[in-house]
Amino acid sequence: MAGLRRLVLDVLKPHEPSNVLLAVKLSEMENVEGVNLLLREMDQNTETLKITIVGDNLNFDKIRKILEEFGAVIHSVDEIVAGRKIVESVKTEQD
Amino acid sequence: MAGLRRLVLDVLKPHEPSNVLLAVKLSEMENVEGVNLLLREMDQNTETLKITIVGDNLNFDKIRKILEEFGAVIHSVDEIVAGRKIVESVKTEQD
Amino acid sequence: MAGLRRLVLDVLKPHEPSNVLLAVKLSEMENVEGVNLLLREMDQNTETLKITIVGDNLNFDKIRKILEEFGAVIHSVDEIVAGRKIVESVKTEQD
Amino acid sequence: MAGLRRLVLDVLKPHEPSNVLLAVKLSEMENVEGVNLLLREMDQNTETLKITIVGDNLNFDKIRKILEEFGAVIHSVDEIVAGRKIVESVKTEQD
Amino acid sequence: MAGLRRLVLDVLKPHEPSNVLLAVKLSEMENVEGVNLLLREMDQNTETLKITIVGDNLNFDKIRKILEEFGAVIHSVDEIVAGRKIVESVKTEQD
Amino acid sequence: MAGLRRLVLDVLKPHEPSNVLLAVKLSEMENVEGVNLLLREMDQNTETLKITIVGDNLNFDKIRKILEEFGAVIHSVDEIVAGRKIVESVKTEQD
Amino acid sequence: MAGLRRLVLDVLKPHEPSNVLLAVKLSEMENVEGVNLLLREMDQNTETLKITIVGDNLNFDKIRKILEEFGAVIHSVDEIVAGRKIVESVKTEQD
Repeated sequence: MAGLRRLVLDVLKPHEPSNVLLAVKLSEMENVEGVNLLLREMDQNTETLKITIVGDNLNFDKIRKILEEFGAVIHSVDEIVAGRKIVESVKTEQD
Repeated sequence: MAGLRRLVLDVLKPHEPSNVLLAVKLSEMENVEGVNLLLREMDQNTETLKITIVGDNLNFDKIRKILEEFGAVIHSVDEIVAGRKIVESVKTEQD
Repeated sequence: MAGLRRLVLDVLKPHEPSNVLLAVKLSEMENVEGVNLLLREMDQNTETLKITIVGDNLNFDKIRKILEEFGAVIHSVDEIVAGRKIVESVKTEQD
Repeated sequence: MAGLRRLVLDVLKPHEPSNVLLAVKLSEMENVEGVNLLLREMDQNTETLKITIVGDNLNFDKIRKILEEFGAVIHSVDEIVAGRKIVESVKTEQD
Repeated sequence: MAGLRRLVLDVLKPHEPSNVLLAVKLSEMENVEGVNLLLREMDQNTETLKITIVGDNLNFDKIRKILEEFGAVIHSVDEIVAGRKIVESVKTEQD
Repeated sequence: MAGLRRLVLDVLKPHEPSNVLLAVKLSEMENVEGVNLLLREMDQNTETLKITIVGDNLNFDKIRKILEEFGAVIHSVDEIVAGRKIVESVKTEQD
Repeated sequence: MAGLRRLVLDVLKPHEPSNVLLAVKLSEMENVEGVNLLLREMDQNTETLKITIVGDNLNFDKIRKILEEFGAVIHSVDEIVAGRKIVESVKTEQD
């Protein structure tokens, strides 16, 4: 395993098509092992999501395209994990 | 294993039929491995529940139908996990 | 294993018969694997307990009957776990 | 294994005989696997202890008698675990 | 294994002889498996230490004697674990 | 394994080239097992990152050079782990 | 294994020579298994570090000498672990 292994995305999305469809669609991409989609905030027309995608050699551009097909926009990429091994962030005295 | 693997639902429900019946009913659905039903708030006529359902290829529409048979409404879908692997949400500096 | 697997009950009970007797009695029921009885509050005549019961195909009505034999009343059922697998509640951004 | 498996006691005790002796004495009772004695508060003549006793088919009356031999009184039984399996208390939204 | 298995001591000690020497000395006692010496507070002439000693059939009197050889005094015995099994304190609603 | 095993860097970087590219680039260096890149703050022109790099005999100068190729500057090295074994920082009473 | 097994040092050090060099140097000492060097505070001329050293029969005097070669001073020894087994500090009601 190598390349992109985990991405955490902050995403703005209209209510439809549904988040259930989006999660399943992302999970069916090549190289994706699993997807966690968390609802952060729900407004009248949009919702803010935190999406965690785990896999091997993830293709960031294809992920962004699928999000766009759902009318969603990536606000920020909050975490990127890459390499042979999944490395967790370590808490330091500066946190 | 694939498709929907875990759902966390915020649900409003009348007191009857009982939550014990609802939990057992959901746990007996095809592809469901287990159900956790947590009482969030209890009012005079209704209660707010947090329901976590784990399984393989969960059928969201059938789950909603069973909830409707109990007079319950899904307020929001707070978490959706999909794919071969159950992915947990990762804490980032933005949380 | 299936059916009711874990129940968390909020219970009001007179001091006598003792909680030690109640815990042992519940633990000796058919299908019960173990019982945790936690003292929440103690008043002059009554005490509030949090009772966690783990097993397989738990019989909620029989549990309630035993509680009644001890003069105890279930205030609320705070958690219900059902199914082949014990599912824990997941922390979401809505908690 | 069955019966009483773990007890958590809130105990008031004079300074002498010493807590070290009490802990060893309790740990040497039949069916007791281990004892944890935690100092909660120390006053001029007495101390408040939290005593956790783990075993199989614990004999509550004999435990109380040993405590009395040390001049100690049980204020409350804060937790009782019984059954084939040690069940931990589960955190719910009501805690 | 039996008898005293773990002691947590609150200790007042002059700066010299050094804590490094004290920790090694305690760890070399018969039946002692390991020692953790934590600095709580440092004043001009003394320091407050939290000392955790793990072993089998620990000899409390000999431990006190070694502490006295270092000019140290036990303020309180904050935890005592005894028996065949190391039992941890359980968090209850009274904590 | 020996030498530098883990580095936690506080880094200031312009938006482009992207963090995804940076994470993959670092993860492809010799001796690097994995990289975690966490977004701390995003400003108009720059972003602050926390980068954790795990491996064996990490080459700090080469890591700094790659960061410079991305226009990034190391503000501080918040944690350094070296040796045969990855040692975690221990919480003491002084933290 | 015996003697000093883990030391946690609070250290004041000038910026140069670098912390990366110091961590690697300490990790290459005889009997040292690994080193964790955490940046606590950075001032204009100095930095405060928390250094955790793990090994077997650690030589405290040699460690202090290496620190002195880097112009560093030990402010306090916050934790000392000694013996056959690494003992962690236990949380008590007095903490």
